Order: sequence, then structure tokens, then C-alpha cells
Amino acid sequence: MSKEEKKHHEIDALGEFGLIDSLTKDAVLKNPSSLLGVGDDAAEIELSTKESMLLSTDMLVEGVHFNLSYVPLKSLGFKAVSVNVSDVLAMNGKPEQLTVSIGVSSKFPVEAITELYKGIHSACEFYNVDLVGGDTVSSLSGLVLSISVIGRAAKEKICYRSGAKENDLIVVTGDLGTSYLGLQILEREKGVFLENPNIQPKLDGYDELVKKQIQPIARQDVIDIFQELDFVPSSMIDISDGLASELLHIAKSSECAVSIYSDKLPITEKVILTAEELSLDPYMCAMNGGEDYELLFTASQKDYEKIKNHPSFSIIGFVTDKSQDNLLIDKNNSAVRISAQGWKHF
Amino acid sequence: MSKEEKKHHEIDALGEFGLIDSLTKDAVLKNPSSLLGVGDDAAEIELSTKESMLLSTDMLVEGVHFNLSYVPLKSLGFKAVSVNVSDVLAMNGKPEQLTVSIGVSSKFPVEAITELYKGIHSACEFYNVDLVGGDTVSSLSGLVLSISVIGRAAKEKICYRSGAKENDLIVVTGDLGTSYLGLQILEREKGVFLENPNIQPKLDGYDELVKKQIQPIARQDVIDIFQELDFVPSSMIDISDGLASELLHIAKSSECAVSIYSDKLPITEKVILTAEELSLDPYMCAMNGGEDYELLFTASQKDYEKIKNHPSFSIIGFVTDKSQDNLLIDKNNSAVRISAQGWKHF
Repeated sequence: MSKEEKKHHEIDALGEFGLIDSLTKDAVLKNPSSLLGVGDDAAEIELSTKESMLLSTDMLVEGVHFNLSYVPLKSLGFKAVSVNVSDVLAMNGKPEQLTVSIGVSSKFPVEAITELYKGIHSACEFYNVDLVGGDTVSSLSGLVLSISVIGRAAKEKICYRSGAKENDLIVVTGDLGTSYLGLQILEREKGVFLENPNIQPKLDGYDELVKKQIQPIARQDVIDIFQELDFVPSSMIDISDGLASELLHIAKSSECAVSIYSDKLPITEKVILTAEELSLDPYMCAMNGGEDYELLFTASQKDYEKIKNHPSFSIIGFVTDKSQDNLLIDKNNSAVRISAQGWKHF
Repeated sequence: MSKEEKKHHEIDALGEFGLIDSLTKDAVLKNPSSLLGVGDDAAEIELSTKESMLLSTDMLVEGVHFNLSYVPLKSLGFKAVSVNVSDVLAMNGKPEQLTVSIGVSSKFPVEAITELYKGIHSACEFYNVDLVGGDTVSSLSGLVLSISVIGRAAKEKICYRSGAKENDLIVVTGDLGTSYLGLQILEREKGVFLENPNIQPKLDGYDELVKKQIQPIARQDVIDIFQELDFVPSSMIDISDGLASELLHIAKSSECAVSIYSDKLPITEKVILTAEELSLDPYMCAMNGGEDYELLFTASQKDYEKIKNHPSFSIIGFVTDKSQDNLLIDKNNSAVRISAQGWKHF
């Protein structure tokens, strides 16, 4: 590498989000049907005065986003669909169509690709989404999956990251940290296996953790619950990178701040016990673990009665003015500032 | 590799099209809005009783679909958009939105990715398409690009591969073989350079060939011409894999056969001279070269007057009954059977 080249910025330094921001900030939307571009869970394209189409796309790369040494291909196919479907759900939309492009080495057996597609077809069936297109190409090394999903929503029901208002309640679905601990268990057993291939992996008793990591279910049921409750969140995002990171996205997009309470975080006993076993902080797992594919949303106080008793929802905090810090408050009322990777005492 | 594994089919044996067919044949369309799935240039999704959305996606892999040693990144970005836009045009639709996902090694300089996006933005501007989303991820080796494009069309104007009828005229836009010869010139000069790095590549005089290979323009103008002529093709496809291959797609989808005349093929003098220089058959270049991104369509005889004199169109043959062979007929009236890779005398 020449001196000249060394002066170039490497992508690592800028980070994934920074790179996307810098490359797409020039994208001016000219077609009147392009209502919303980069910057939310999905793009929004106008269909009529009352309805919009939602479009989201994700790329998954072997060795970066998945590891074929412990992820069965069928589960990988299912998960890849879940990840994309989750983005449309996060806008309060109904996913309907999907395209799947795969890049695959010619040495990959057809049987393996068939397993992958079994998982994709199974997820399409589960979410009632149609596989309508795609591309299959050679890759020189490793498996690459690119999925785009299309959904629809009534305009008045679409939830953006930017809609949170001061005093809104902050709510999450399901429980947190489960998927991250599933990954830690898989990594531990892989380490044991690599040291001694005669020892079988011990996954018994960790089923719910491992299953949520390997084959997460996007919360399509929650969109139906909203409908039944006649409730529309003021903002919403799905939890792919970890609760802390998603809270900061909502705060930034909505020009507000958030305060949440650690004792309100939905953490199962299994997560607490497994975290302890692995010498991890269960709150850290819930805040920064990622890949939960639960939904994080905000609700106006007037909707409190609608959502307060639903078993799928946990109210974890409230929205504050943007002049405030984003805070995680513990049971002793001591506050730490939330950051996307871990958090700092102040 | 164990004996058991060796029994597996490798992907090479099945071929790209066979693989896609075998993996997507199980895809049943359940949502009423999914009008057309895999099998044409784009999927069709119903928007209203009068209008549909068209959706197409392509994946491009470094070392397979492009070679960064002689393709400038800006041109690659432009071409990647053109290839996708062309699929929507091939359905007689108007492309409006685009998503771009890229997988890139962390060692790739940000400046290089910025060049790539300059080409993408430039193409978006040229085609009046909005970049509305995407994903930027790490790749362990090489650059991977996945683009999805969305367009719209009035239902009554959408052209499928399946609409050709016996006696219809077969028409192509522009000229053929140009892009393939551009690639041959680039390969030749790369070979010379590798043998002796002091010799500069000689591309002078081959500009039109090299430009069509490196930065092809999808025929959006042709869709406007159809509009002006008040003409709708009976079937259409874009020429990405070569005229012969696309003719066979139309014949198969439309359950018909085709007869075309070699002396009607639009081949420029530059293509003839360059083919001779490289000891290639110019007809072979036109039939099987690929990457022309021209449009191939069929027209009812009643529309002959509308299209006969347009300088962008060449009538090259006609549709026959499916009991016939697919034929290329030379000026001596001797016929050869068309096959997707070269053709066989009989």
C-alpha cells in the first residue's frame, strides 16, 4: 500500500451508519410518489391518498452476519426473512411480497441451497408473504443473501421513528437479551467443540435462548394487537441492534430524550440465570444484546388504558425534552447515560 | 470431501437458470396483490384496478459480473442501476425508486465507495429514479452489489414475455454485439498490459464499444417512443444474456417459435470491422454477446405502419407456430437452429 493510499479512510473508521449517512445524504427525492427515503426502518412510496407501500432491504454476509458452523441453513433462511419482515412491521405495515437474491460459491451443494430455500419458503408461509422474485448468482467465496420486502399500510397508521412526543410512554414487546445469550451459549459450545471434538455441545436447557438467536420470530402478532386495541403508536422501531441503540434512534429522529427504568425491563429468569452463569450483566444483555426483533414503540399518555394490561407489552419509561440526557435509571434512582455500546456513569 | 458429499449436486451442473427454477417453483402466490412472481423481467404487484407496480432485483459480484481492474467504480455504479432499470423498462414500465445494498471489505477505501455512489447517483438522476433505501455491510472479500428497482405501469400497457402471437413481427432496438466486442477489447488490452506493464492500453477508436460495455444506457427513451406512437408491444424482454437467449425466453413463455434473418440484424460497421480484427463472427457477437441492454419486442402485424420507419427499431423476423424450430435464416435462405449458446447446423 502506497503512502497515498494510506491516507484514504478505511471503512472501519467511519462505521456502518456513518457510511450509509454519508453516501445517501445526497439522495434527493424527485418522484412525487417517493414520500420517505433513507433513515427509517423502511422507505415509503405513495400508492393513493390513503395508502402507502413500505420497502425495506437487508444484506446478510457469511462470516459477518451468520456462521454456518452452528446455524442450520433452514433456520438461516427463516431468520433472513424475519429480519426483513420486522422492518415493515416496525412501520406498522403488513408485509406482502419478498425478493431473495443469493450469491453462492459453485462448490456449495444444491442440497444446501435447497435447505436454505426451505427455510425461506417456511417463513413466507408463516408471515403470509409471497416470494415474487430474486436472483441467484455465483460468489467467489461465502454465501451472500440480499432480501427486499414490500408491505402496505394505511397512511394514518404508519409509525415513523420521528413521532415520539414529550411525556409519551416507552414500551417494548416480549423480552430482551434472550437472543444475545443464545449466541453466547452457541459460541461457548463451539469453543468447547474446537478444543475437543469428542465433546458434544450442551444446548439442553438453553432451548429458548438458542431458538430466539437462530430462528427469531418477527412480531407480526403485535400489529394485529394494535388493530384490536384500536391503537397507533406515536413512533416505532424494531430492536435489531439492541434496545440502547434503538432508543437513541428514536430520540434523535424525534428530537427528544428518553428515560427508562432498569427494573421495568422485561428480562426472563432464564436470561438472569444464564447471564450470571456466563459472568455477564443481564441489564447489559437486555440493553445492548441486539437481534431480539422485538418492537420498541412510544404511546401517548391518553392511550395508557389501551395498552397497560396487555401481556405482550412492558412500559419501560417515558419521553423527555431534548435538553435532557438519555437515561437508564436503576431501582436506587441512580441514573446512567445511555450510549449505543454500553453506557457511561456520570 | 467425503464420498457422501461428492454425491451432492454442485451448482455448476444445474446452471443458474435451472437453480432459480428449482428453488422458486414452490413459491405459491397467496396475497391477491401478487399478480406475477418469478419468471419475467420483473414481478407485478397490483396497485389498483388500473395500475400495477413492477419490482426487479439483481445481484452483482466482483470477479463474476465485473472486474475492478478495468471498470472504473463510477461506471460500475451507473451500470448496476442501468441493468435494473432495464428490467422495469422491459415490462413497459416507468422506474421510480431504487434501493442499493453493498457488501464491502473493510479495507476498501471510503473514497472508492464514494466513487461508486457517484455513479449510482448520476444514474438515478439520468433515469429520474429516487434512491430510497439500502444497506451497507462488511464483506470478507470482494464487492457485492444488490439493487432492487420499483416502477409503475398502467395494467393495459404492461408487456410480458408471454404475449407473442404467431405472425407477430420481431423487433430489436439499437444495435447488437457492441458491448461484447467492447469487453473483448478490454480483455485484449488487459492481457497486453499484464505481459508488459510499460505498454499503455490502446482503446482509441474503440470508444463506442468500450463505453457500451462499461456504462450501458437502458432504453428508457424507447418507452417514451412507444407512448408517442400509441403502440404497445405484444411481448418484450431486455437483452442482457444475448439475443439468442432472449428469443428463446420469449418463444418458451409465449409457446411459439421464432424465425429471424441474419441480414436484418442491426450490426454496425465498427462491430463488423472489430469482429474481423479479433477473428470473431460478427453474427455470433450479435446473437450471443449479451449485455447490450437493448429491448427485444414483438408487434402485431396491424401495428407495422406505426413502427416500420422508426430509426431506433429493426424488424428482424417473425413469430411462428410452436411446432416450428427457432431459426436464424441467412441471406442464402439457409437456416440454422437457434440455441442459447452458439447455434447448431442441421
